[in-house]
Amino acid sequence: MKRVLYTGSFDPITNGHLDLINRASKLCDELVVGVIENKSKIPFFTIEERTGMIEKATKHLKNVKVDSFCGLLADYVNAHNISAVVRGLRATMDFEYEIQMAQMNARLFKKDVETIFLMTSPDYSFISSSMIKEVFSLKGNIKGLVPDVILECMESKLAEKTGGIEK
Amino acid sequence: MKRVLYTGSFDPITNGHLDLINRASKLCDELVVGVIENKSKIPFFTIEERTGMIEKATKHLKNVKVDSFCGLLADYVNAHNISAVVRGLRATMDFEYEIQMAQMNARLFKKDVETIFLMTSPDYSFISSSMIKEVFSLKGNIKGLVPDVILECMESKLAEKTGGIEK
Amino acid sequence: MKRVLYTGSFDPITNGHLDLINRASKLCDELVVGVIENKSKIPFFTIEERTGMIEKATKHLKNVKVDSFCGLLADYVNAHNISAVVRGLRATMDFEYEIQMAQMNARLFKKDVETIFLMTSPDYSFISSSMIKEVFSLKGNIKGLVPDVILECMESKLAEKTGGIEK
Amino acid sequence: MKRVLYTGSFDPITNGHLDLINRASKLCDELVVGVIENKSKIPFFTIEERTGMIEKATKHLKNVKVDSFCGLLADYVNAHNISAVVRGLRATMDFEYEIQMAQMNARLFKKDVETIFLMTSPDYSFISSSMIKEVFSLKGNIKGLVPDVILECMESKLAEKTGGIEK
Amino acid sequence: MKRVLYTGSFDPITNGHLDLINRASKLCDELVVGVIENKSKIPFFTIEERTGMIEKATKHLKNVKVDSFCGLLADYVNAHNISAVVRGLRATMDFEYEIQMAQMNARLFKKDVETIFLMTSPDYSFISSSMIKEVFSLKGNIKGLVPDVILECMESKLAEKTGGIEK
Amino acid sequence: MKRVLYTGSFDPITNGHLDLINRASKLCDELVVGVIENKSKIPFFTIEERTGMIEKATKHLKNVKVDSFCGLLADYVNAHNISAVVRGLRATMDFEYEIQMAQMNARLFKKDVETIFLMTSPDYSFISSSMIKEVFSLKGNIKGLVPDVILECMESKLAEKTGGIEK
Repeated sequence: MKRVLYTGSFDPITNGHLDLINRASKLCDELVVGVIENKSKIPFFTIEERTGMIEKATKHLKNVKVDSFCGLLADYVNAHNISAVVRGLRATMDFEYEIQMAQMNARLFKKDVETIFLMTSPDYSFISSSMIKEVFSLKGNIKGLVPDVILECMESKLAEKTGGIEK
Repeated sequence: MKRVLYTGSFDPITNGHLDLINRASKLCDELVVGVIENKSKIPFFTIEERTGMIEKATKHLKNVKVDSFCGLLADYVNAHNISAVVRGLRATMDFEYEIQMAQMNARLFKKDVETIFLMTSPDYSFISSSMIKEVFSLKGNIKGLVPDVILECMESKLAEKTGGIEK
Repeated sequence: MKRVLYTGSFDPITNGHLDLINRASKLCDELVVGVIENKSKIPFFTIEERTGMIEKATKHLKNVKVDSFCGLLADYVNAHNISAVVRGLRATMDFEYEIQMAQMNARLFKKDVETIFLMTSPDYSFISSSMIKEVFSLKGNIKGLVPDVILECMESKLAEKTGGIEK
Repeated sequence: MKRVLYTGSFDPITNGHLDLINRASKLCDELVVGVIENKSKIPFFTIEERTGMIEKATKHLKNVKVDSFCGLLADYVNAHNISAVVRGLRATMDFEYEIQMAQMNARLFKKDVETIFLMTSPDYSFISSSMIKEVFSLKGNIKGLVPDVILECMESKLAEKTGGIEK
Repeated sequence: MKRVLYTGSFDPITNGHLDLINRASKLCDELVVGVIENKSKIPFFTIEERTGMIEKATKHLKNVKVDSFCGLLADYVNAHNISAVVRGLRATMDFEYEIQMAQMNARLFKKDVETIFLMTSPDYSFISSSMIKEVFSLKGNIKGLVPDVILECMESKLAEKTGGIEK
Repeated sequence: MKRVLYTGSFDPITNGHLDLINRASKLCDELVVGVIENKSKIPFFTIEERTGMIEKATKHLKNVKVDSFCGLLADYVNAHNISAVVRGLRATMDFEYEIQMAQMNARLFKKDVETIFLMTSPDYSFISSSMIKEVFSLKGNIKGLVPDVILECMESKLAEKTGGIEK
């Protein structure tokens, strides 16, 4: 596979995402991490912040490139010469949604572009960005669930949002 | 991915398997179809017959090679310089078993060898070799579920097993 | 079964819905397609538009009647002499929700009124109205996923919503 | 629906089966309970015993007829003018298998013959013939899980199998 | 187990919750029912009302104590000397979410604090507070799904919300 | 909970079982590990060997007692004053089977005896005794999946079965 795409909101990137990026990058010449800009949701981090954070967290992986996009996934895939889209599967509920998406995308992608799946490592199967934000916002300990550099970004962001004052 | 392995009993190969072989062969330099020899089960077709049938059914795919093996999958993978093992996911029940196998194999495979999954096309999601053999043995119509060349092999085999006499 | 009810938001009706309506209509004397008016959600098409669109898409089916309702399903069922409610099952996630609904409704329906289920054809199992609207709004191709007459309605509606100007 | 078929091994018929027969019989003119003769398994009750037991347990339902068959379900369906096959769904694992069977049968059944599903009542969702036989063989109490007339048959059968002597 | 915690929104408490409280109270010295105050959702009943309603519904259970909290579950658990958190499992979809929560909490709870699960009784497996509120708001009959004392509270609350005038 | 029972074939005990025994032993006064003697299956280790191996592997847990039994689980539970039976849940497929068993047992157990569930730790969720035996028999590395003392037993047993000669 020449160029593979891994997409998500990454708000923020977790150790589960990073494990998948690391593993997927071994399977292809270039892995594009595509940050989805969803204009109908207010994110914790802006699209620029998220892109920058992934660049920091993946800088040791030479064939990983970070990009962002909005609109139809298939448009990005078809325009950027992507060979395959990679997705992580954590659990049965993921599976149901993913199979629906993969079948729709099979109609929209150019010929021979595939959706491929990797299983999430068991150590990360319970991590999601939304659960991490919830625990973090309630001052629970998320060390080990996100890269250390990301934890610092989260703390700065929270300080910024709360005006530097302990909530 | 340089060399990818797709394994199964293929007793017999179905149109579902063939669709997956076709799609997976586009993602790598070489796809090895590895027929598993399970010495504790009596197959419908011998290992040589199955290997030959897959060769016939895939002869239009230039980068597909057929092999057979017994023993531990990880031994075959580690000895033959396999980059990834590809598996088809049809449904939730598959998923549960596959995640268990993938996690065990992650321990046994050499570093950076991955199990990757493709979703079965919806047209083939209900096909399994065992259901095909059951329907065929009860004289039900399986045209369109296996390649035509395989259907002929099944008819010859049945004639051979029943001494050429209508059961 | 005399009179069977098939309900949904049908915003818009898809080829998956139409396949189910077609099949269910063969099992009963009269099939009522009941469009649910959910006052807490803003639909893409109004209730009158949706009713009209289903009438167009099902006009070849002589025993299909289209109606709309708001309020408790069981009230409609009990008031209109319905013998059974038919539901489509696409996947495991549907199944979980449907079993919960069917058990609640078993308490609320008149005696001997049943919820019956048909499996969605594999070709349509990945289609949902919400996914169709999402792909359509991003200018993806949905031909073959909705009846052609419905595609025209969607294009007119979009033109109307965007003031006839290309967005 | 004119004539509906409900099949199973019914070795023995349980209160879960009976509840489904009762409910399905309300939806059609005639319900045929088709006892499957599986020549590769040794049943607890012979095919004649099972047929007789279902006749006893369903004699209050005037439009229920009991029959037995071996071979391909589709052959029986196509030869006997069946409008639909009814199946009970207990749980997600049932669902996966049933969807596979229904899709295969959609190819094998005559045009417009459907597989329809009813949800098992929650009170019976944990009952299976095999679990009942296992508990019964270990002298556990199965009263309330099978009709009383069936419990007597099971006790007679056990006495017969063990020569009337306490095992 | 000395002190076990059972949490939820309980808006309102159902017969399914009550069955679980009853059963869990037999397994420990003290069962704390912890009503979660979710400040981002507007509940039907206030936190004080819900606490009071559970006290009424559980007054026959001598080792049950009702409390409320907001914030991180793990903070409550760690601060109140809880031995285990008990959860009800109704269905597969519950299961997926619960396993994710349990694994996150295993990191956040003090050593040896466990999440334990009880299966919901089949009679109550289809009941949820939100479905009860929906059916009730549409004037459907929910008798037998909530304790009678709770049904009275719901009727009073509705009268209060609608100014005592029939909607 | 005074006395809790954890049952299984334990052929052999794995690190997944041991993790569950360790955690369950913290929740009760006494944990009985009950090895099931299934007379219709030929085990790898005899019932005496399995009992002995669990004793070795759990000797650091003072309130764990090992026993074996055949026959109905409920008979053992009711005769030995068990307060609850504990089960591990690894995945959705487990869940379906377990809910069926728990509901049957709720009928057979004495009043107030419960089946309680703990989630398997993610690190062990892919381990089963049968997969370990399969990998071991094919000379795959199972270190870290069973306690070291059990690995030695497996090697001795294999040497004994193969007459000390390399197979």
